[in-house]
Amino acid sequence: MSATTTFAPVCTLSRIDEPLPVLGGDVHVPLVTGGETPYAALDYAASAPALQRVWDDVAAYAPYYGSVHRGAGHLSQLSTELFEQSRQTVAEFLGCREGDQVVFTRSTTDSLNLLAAALPPGTRVFVFETEHHAALLPWQARGSDVTYLDAPRSPEQAVATLESALHAAPSGPKLVCVTGASNVTGEVWPVRELARAAHRHGARLVLDAAQLAPHRPVSLSELEADWVAFSGHKLYAPFGAGVLAGRADWLRAAEPYLAGGGASRRVSRTADGTVEAEWHTTAARHEAGSPNVIGAYAVASACRALTEAGFDRLVAREEELLARLRKGLAELPEVRVLSLFGEEADQVGVVSFVVEGWNSSHFAAALSAEYGIGVRDGLFCAHPLLRALLGQQGDAPGECGAPDGASGELPGSSAGVTPTLNAVRVSFGAGTPDEHVDRFLSAVRQLVRDGASWTYRTENGRCVPEPRRDAAN
Amino acid sequence: MSATTTFAPVCTLSRIDEPLPVLGGDVHVPLVTGGETPYAALDYAASAPALQRVWDDVAAYAPYYGSVHRGAGHLSQLSTELFEQSRQTVAEFLGCREGDQVVFTRSTTDSLNLLAAALPPGTRVFVFETEHHAALLPWQARGSDVTYLDAPRSPEQAVATLESALHAAPSGPKLVCVTGASNVTGEVWPVRELARAAHRHGARLVLDAAQLAPHRPVSLSELEADWVAFSGHKLYAPFGAGVLAGRADWLRAAEPYLAGGGASRRVSRTADGTVEAEWHTTAARHEAGSPNVIGAYAVASACRALTEAGFDRLVAREEELLARLRKGLAELPEVRVLSLFGEEADQVGVVSFVVEGWNSSHFAAALSAEYGIGVRDGLFCAHPLLRALLGQQGDAPGECGAPDGASGELPGSSAGVTPTLNAVRVSFGAGTPDEHVDRFLSAVRQLVRDGASWTYRTENGRCVPEPRRDAAN
Repeated sequence: MSATTTFAPVCTLSRIDEPLPVLGGDVHVPLVTGGETPYAALDYAASAPALQRVWDDVAAYAPYYGSVHRGAGHLSQLSTELFEQSRQTVAEFLGCREGDQVVFTRSTTDSLNLLAAALPPGTRVFVFETEHHAALLPWQARGSDVTYLDAPRSPEQAVATLESALHAAPSGPKLVCVTGASNVTGEVWPVRELARAAHRHGARLVLDAAQLAPHRPVSLSELEADWVAFSGHKLYAPFGAGVLAGRADWLRAAEPYLAGGGASRRVSRTADGTVEAEWHTTAARHEAGSPNVIGAYAVASACRALTEAGFDRLVAREEELLARLRKGLAELPEVRVLSLFGEEADQVGVVSFVVEGWNSSHFAAALSAEYGIGVRDGLFCAHPLLRALLGQQGDAPGECGAPDGASGELPGSSAGVTPTLNAVRVSFGAGTPDEHVDRFLSAVRQLVRDGASWTYRTENGRCVPEPRRDAAN
Repeated sequence: MSATTTFAPVCTLSRIDEPLPVLGGDVHVPLVTGGETPYAALDYAASAPALQRVWDDVAAYAPYYGSVHRGAGHLSQLSTELFEQSRQTVAEFLGCREGDQVVFTRSTTDSLNLLAAALPPGTRVFVFETEHHAALLPWQARGSDVTYLDAPRSPEQAVATLESALHAAPSGPKLVCVTGASNVTGEVWPVRELARAAHRHGARLVLDAAQLAPHRPVSLSELEADWVAFSGHKLYAPFGAGVLAGRADWLRAAEPYLAGGGASRRVSRTADGTVEAEWHTTAARHEAGSPNVIGAYAVASACRALTEAGFDRLVAREEELLARLRKGLAELPEVRVLSLFGEEADQVGVVSFVVEGWNSSHFAAALSAEYGIGVRDGLFCAHPLLRALLGQQGDAPGECGAPDGASGELPGSSAGVTPTLNAVRVSFGAGTPDEHVDRFLSAVRQLVRDGASWTYRTENGRCVPEPRRDAAN
């Protein structure tokens, strides 16, 4: 019996000039100014809503959930088959080469930490300071020597910077870690050129595709990358699974990422009373513990849905929305869009900006409170990049991934004169209707020109909206 | 706005003499002997079905899913609140003390690997050989010196063995890792007595509650344990999340488990061109990457559901079923139930056994193919324990968590004379109807007395059922 034939629901994709159906499209949120509005989710770069298709697949499978591997029951066999089919689906989605491994992890962060733990001793890692912390920090944390490369100002400069660093490097194993698309600027990096540069110098390359995979086709063989990492929760499959895929040799030679069942093939006491373990050499080596079948299946479902929708058409639609967004922001001189590579750069649906006279946190809070629009503010877990983009202004208290400390009380209106401490990021994807982008632009325009209806202050690291005193009197 | 009031569905618990509603109760599976039957999931110790309540909670939340931390939008705030509320719910479920931390991981395996990575340098770990590999292997893999303790034959002997090992140990930090309930025998270990013994000798204790938490109340303060680990997928919440909870000091002092966003508080380039990170000291320190909100919320939902159902009544019902199961098996002299502590031992709904003349894999396959009953066979990721329980018979090829190599063709009937290479495990829980246990007993009886209707052989590590030649002729 085939797992998929048992419970896979019949799905029909929407017309492609429409967004793909996602959960939450009909969620209404209250406005401080009264009433409520449909929520506009424009923080896809952090966590994208689940595709309806992914949810339907998960819901159809959930009653059939069973233990993976070694379970003798029907549902265990079905779940095991489904898990391995999911691995195969992901391998196809990523253009894996023969012999490549697909390891299910929990996220891009987890994937890159796994690779960092699997590097041959003495590997030197090359990474641009512009990376997300998940791609910036694991190498040093796991004991590798790291060469941090300064922020390039063009794709060509990125390649040249890498070439020259690799040229100057001593011999030995080398790894380059590079983003596919920046989580701050959305700019697409020249992955294939960087991979070729790496290979010319005997280095390997891992692609952080957390931001690229939801927007563009990512093929290991076409990009000539050695590994790729991405997260389910940014790929419309928020069920706790991510992926590391690529060359098997270093993974097979490394100590298991987690020690435990699933990774161990045979465990025995030795004559001297200690314990000896023999480990699997397949992907299971790094997947100790019961696999997250639902998470893996959700990722595979998203891969199938995006493939079937067709990246050509998804990209075309996204570029249209992006052009509209950029044009709208460009009309506002108070808005400065952050960019490394300049206006002509290839870009996915991720745009960060600062607004003259506004604290970015308050701007983002006003978008939420007065317009029902969810964006993100902060330094986006890419502190060095933000400092490079914002200059000294960015060198402010700023936490990553958790509320920051109080940053003072600042008036949340265009009348304020506080320097911007961080940035606002708007990001979207396959589930975004045109209306969200239009509403966002109209809200930005209104906030910039007329100011907010309420005021915003920061209290214990959170933005608190308050009625304007002048309005209240 | 409160997160829970927005979308939490109204749930009514079933009467307690009934099982708690779980997904998959109405799944039918085909039988090789013709027709189909409702599936009897009796592999709870590997992965339990989701509670209907957990599924309903997840389904109600899913449209509200948003990025956790730093997102300015309404759903981000709601999701962040929900994530932290989930942490609080789990803390209450586990009887956490003031100052304890609750870290969301992906599983027990992950939790114990996290703790292993967080031990102060020079910590000596004490662990019984009877542990699941997830509790047995991480310590040595992360560089600790480990004292492996021989399988005790009574709870009292366990305490005495530990006392004497700790007594003989050199000074320095010490950790004891112990299971709450064995994943093989289901026997409950004397956790509080072991914790007291540990504390008498200046050691700390981590409780592997993967098998205990779904069956019994687990309170850190009552058990006097320092940490506890458990998995969502064994606690009716199979969405990729697990928990490590307990004392904050070692966790706070340790390097972050994963390096990346969320764990990092501030990251900057230094004057010499390297990168310096300042890390959080809360649970976020070890939770880098976007949190698995759905997984954490599902775990919290299960904690609430079990607490509301009441462990007193859940335990009473489980003990009734267990007594029936043990009595039924005891009536069959061909069946040998595996036990360390003897018949009088306190036990949860996990029973392993071997059947004279049967290959356990084939026995498990027959239960599935001819009766629609899902159990598990193998060495249950506890190889040394199985060898201790089975003697030399257990020293056979046996993988953990993945199909093993072909172990030869063996007739799958009571007429076979093949020594048992591994064991069969039957396990159940809060969602198990009486009928599953009754059907299981009746099937075992029939297989033992009359043999299987089909034959079973092992091919590429999988059991393949085939019509009997005599029947076919």
